[in-house]
Amino acid sequence: MDKILRINMGPDGAPSVKEEGLGDYAGLGGRGMTSSVIGKEVPADSHPLGAENKLVISPGLLSGTAAAMSGRISVGCKSPLTGTIKESNAGGQAAQVMARLGYAAIILEGKPKADTLYKLIINKDGVKLEEDNSLKLLNNYELVDKLKEAYGEKITCMTIGSAGERKLGSATIAVTDMEVRPTRHCGRGGTGAVMGAKGLKAIIFDDSGMKMRAPKDPEAFKAANKRFVEGLRKHPVTGEGLPAYGTNVLTNVLSEAGGYPTNNFSKGTFEGASKISGEAQAELETQRGGSATHGCHRGCIIRCSGTFNDKNGRFLTKQPEYETVWAHGGNCGIDDLDAIAMMDRLDDDYGLDTIEMGASVAVAMDAGIAKFGDAEAAINLVKEVGKGTELGRILGSGAAVTGRVFGVERIPVVKGQAMPAYDPRAVQGIGVTYATSTMGADHTAGYAVATNILKVGGDVDPLKPEGQVELSRNLQVATAAVDATGMCLFIAFAVLDQPDTFQALIDMLNAFYGLEMTADDVSELGKKILKEEREFNKRAGFTAEHDRLPRFFITEPVAPHNVTFQVSDKELDNLFNW
Amino acid sequence: MDKILRINMGPDGAPSVKEEGLGDYAGLGGRGMTSSVIGKEVPADSHPLGAENKLVISPGLLSGTAAAMSGRISVGCKSPLTGTIKESNAGGQAAQVMARLGYAAIILEGKPKADTLYKLIINKDGVKLEEDNSLKLLNNYELVDKLKEAYGEKITCMTIGSAGERKLGSATIAVTDMEVRPTRHCGRGGTGAVMGAKGLKAIIFDDSGMKMRAPKDPEAFKAANKRFVEGLRKHPVTGEGLPAYGTNVLTNVLSEAGGYPTNNFSKGTFEGASKISGEAQAELETQRGGSATHGCHRGCIIRCSGTFNDKNGRFLTKQPEYETVWAHGGNCGIDDLDAIAMMDRLDDDYGLDTIEMGASVAVAMDAGIAKFGDAEAAINLVKEVGKGTELGRILGSGAAVTGRVFGVERIPVVKGQAMPAYDPRAVQGIGVTYATSTMGADHTAGYAVATNILKVGGDVDPLKPEGQVELSRNLQVATAAVDATGMCLFIAFAVLDQPDTFQALIDMLNAFYGLEMTADDVSELGKKILKEEREFNKRAGFTAEHDRLPRFFITEPVAPHNVTFQVSDKELDNLFNW
Repeated sequence: MDKILRINMGPDGAPSVKEEGLGDYAGLGGRGMTSSVIGKEVPADSHPLGAENKLVISPGLLSGTAAAMSGRISVGCKSPLTGTIKESNAGGQAAQVMARLGYAAIILEGKPKADTLYKLIINKDGVKLEEDNSLKLLNNYELVDKLKEAYGEKITCMTIGSAGERKLGSATIAVTDMEVRPTRHCGRGGTGAVMGAKGLKAIIFDDSGMKMRAPKDPEAFKAANKRFVEGLRKHPVTGEGLPAYGTNVLTNVLSEAGGYPTNNFSKGTFEGASKISGEAQAELETQRGGSATHGCHRGCIIRCSGTFNDKNGRFLTKQPEYETVWAHGGNCGIDDLDAIAMMDRLDDDYGLDTIEMGASVAVAMDAGIAKFGDAEAAINLVKEVGKGTELGRILGSGAAVTGRVFGVERIPVVKGQAMPAYDPRAVQGIGVTYATSTMGADHTAGYAVATNILKVGGDVDPLKPEGQVELSRNLQVATAAVDATGMCLFIAFAVLDQPDTFQALIDMLNAFYGLEMTADDVSELGKKILKEEREFNKRAGFTAEHDRLPRFFITEPVAPHNVTFQVSDKELDNLFNW
Repeated sequence: MDKILRINMGPDGAPSVKEEGLGDYAGLGGRGMTSSVIGKEVPADSHPLGAENKLVISPGLLSGTAAAMSGRISVGCKSPLTGTIKESNAGGQAAQVMARLGYAAIILEGKPKADTLYKLIINKDGVKLEEDNSLKLLNNYELVDKLKEAYGEKITCMTIGSAGERKLGSATIAVTDMEVRPTRHCGRGGTGAVMGAKGLKAIIFDDSGMKMRAPKDPEAFKAANKRFVEGLRKHPVTGEGLPAYGTNVLTNVLSEAGGYPTNNFSKGTFEGASKISGEAQAELETQRGGSATHGCHRGCIIRCSGTFNDKNGRFLTKQPEYETVWAHGGNCGIDDLDAIAMMDRLDDDYGLDTIEMGASVAVAMDAGIAKFGDAEAAINLVKEVGKGTELGRILGSGAAVTGRVFGVERIPVVKGQAMPAYDPRAVQGIGVTYATSTMGADHTAGYAVATNILKVGGDVDPLKPEGQVELSRNLQVATAAVDATGMCLFIAFAVLDQPDTFQALIDMLNAFYGLEMTADDVSELGKKILKEEREFNKRAGFTAEHDRLPRFFITEPVAPHNVTFQVSDKELDNLFNW
């Protein structure tokens, strides 16, 4: 992982491919790499779809090694959805494979002159960038099938569907999983639109013939990894809850806690919750010959995913995540798991962020375009995006645009990005993260739900403002660091509760790179990343006034607790205090 | 003009109407009134379509008097298009009539609970607010005809068409002219959407039985007004150019100067300019039995408007303004005056800002939705807005949203509002105004074209950065003050060139109110208004980084001069230096 691949798509001359050393970017990985490159190389006032924006793809520091859980790949750019800097990471196979192929980053820059699509093929023999207009407007499932036919079954793909080609604000970059299906997505912020604007339809990796990355101190590395895995296995969330029911284990929990945004954030409990819960989902999956426990990449030991078959026992989609089930489910008043799974499949196929899409559909329902609870109408709305109709383009542009176009007042977004599946009034810690994250509303940026609701890493009352800023701050710093390692964020449950599991992670990094980092150094790394991101956003025009929730969260209490968001502006402004 | 009418539309209880004294708002009029009320009473982070936003309507300080040119009415709110404070003013009869009825401001607040439309009737007998759902989705021409049937031929109306009811970002408030036609519009920033969100379809004024407002010193007032009128008559722009050809006299001038944005700001000259010029338009109007010289309100002596009849000699629309002819003409590559007049009529009828609509259509053309130059396609696109289709809603939401939805990179907006008919690269002074105005891109906020191109009020080279900030600053200050008086901005041509005409205006104000204002006091008034507006915008999250042109104006030179916008960020940040 000592090379950078820099690809200039034009417009002057034909696209060019260049390999570079790491230079200034040595020692960086994942979000640390993507945010550093964007911060240094992209003018903050450039148009997200223009030649000056860049798309940076980077595996984490531990990706491609034997470290468990190290399969996250980061994608960074200036976001077409939010206008902020953006890092969006996904599981699947790409991080491991790209790292083994030796690349710390792919930097895609420029913009092709002509309306031409390209594919990028990277294997042990080198790198090829080829025109391929036969891929035009293919969606992810068909596209990946076609690429498998051409390049064999051992490939790993990063692709965009029709949504990315149409440059929609909700467009994702799909990453294939162990079964070479496009089920894992860099979901948030429209990274797929940037890839589309650059004219790149697919990256095809093949790491056949490449070796696992070797640690500086193999013995110490192996020992640390063993302790790390043991720690994950013994924690109730990573060892039991997630493997058994996946992330959707949260549906009942959040609805019972009154923090489950229902019908476009108009109440905090959903009467249909049990019908779409992780428990119900796991049972249905098993019944139909699918699986409720499955990893999304080599080296995953939590295995929070699964396989969702249709009524006839045929593969429909991977196990929909909690946030997806919420977005297309309770947030739209829908309690039908088959309908939700169908929308998950369509989103994956077109290449759409399930959270943003569900939020858009809910806002459209608030405008009267369809009725809350009407699953068939919701599926048809998602299909509009696939067809590329005007209505589809509106919805695919995200909840903020949908609200603008239909004149809706209740638009649950921060910095243009839709809020995920936790009401910030009933889970105030996550409200702080939504408001202040450098990424727009993003639960993964500082998952205070862990401490507010699951009581992991302490216990902070979710309904009160006290302690939320400190909680979110610590989590945002830790998350930024984790996002640099390539580690799945779910390790945080064990790392937060078990000091030795945290130490094992640091020991792994030290053994691999021959370093002597301490916990403080990890924290400093997180702070450095956040600082770079904040500086980019400031240059792009973002101020304290943008670190706020939409006003209805302050003025309208949400049932059943009848609370509003109580954390003061002054406290929010004190989050980034370094 | 010593009363304020405060109307609460709900949602708690039935709408209520209350008369108040002027209180803190004594001595204010027009933009001075609207910006002061919005600045003091509207939370800067409120949703523009929500109950917390207010719509303020205010005649100018000299409206309703015998002062020539005093017929501008200001409407203020937080803008749904830009998110900034907004003042949009129009001619027509409303300012004179409302002022004679004694109201310095109508403040519309709250939001009705039910989906109900109201009309407000104000005459010598008092004020009535009535439900009238029979007006639903009527467009302005049919609506005004219906109101005339009910309330007689002597009324003056302020109305919204279907666009305002649909809460579109380009929706206007129409003001009827001397012929009781809805041809004058508070065009910019979506004021019509705010009126729509408040459920108010129409205000019907009737000043029968009311007297002209009386000055404190009638003799001095009369004498000053006489000097003022003489000044306007002797200046070549206000005495000759505007009366003969209207504002459209600028088409040939700007195209020859290379500052006429053509095909969505991709070049600065339009080969079809002469076919849609003011000269051609005046000839056609006269030929068809219309008129090329006509006032839009009682007391207008410049008479820059006209009557545009169709091929059969029947009234189609008022003489389209230069910016309208540009927006629907050259900016879309269209050189057909009949097509442009048809779009002007449709915009007036649906209640749409012609500048924003033309810009949206041009951005859609850039996305390939229609071809530049295809007049029939352009008309059909405008008709989509009238039908309320999804495509229509996109276009009616403005150029920024249209660009987002269709993935277009070239979007000529500042703070979400489309630039008018002057390329900021070839007319750099207006570029400074676009960038820094409190209103988003707005030529009327500081019309540097006067000095850059028409050589009125001095001579500043339009292609160079030198002197532009000072020019725009002085004009923005003066304009804010003029917008408080109710005076038509076109008086500025004479006022800038002829010190005695400026003095006559001050003398009029002094004689009317018994004051002893100097030119410096007028300047202070302008500065105070701008400061209030800037403070609102700052609270709403706007920073120096928002006082910028889109990046393509900096990176792409425009033909024929092959210049980019050269005024530095540092200079722009120095504009508001008090």
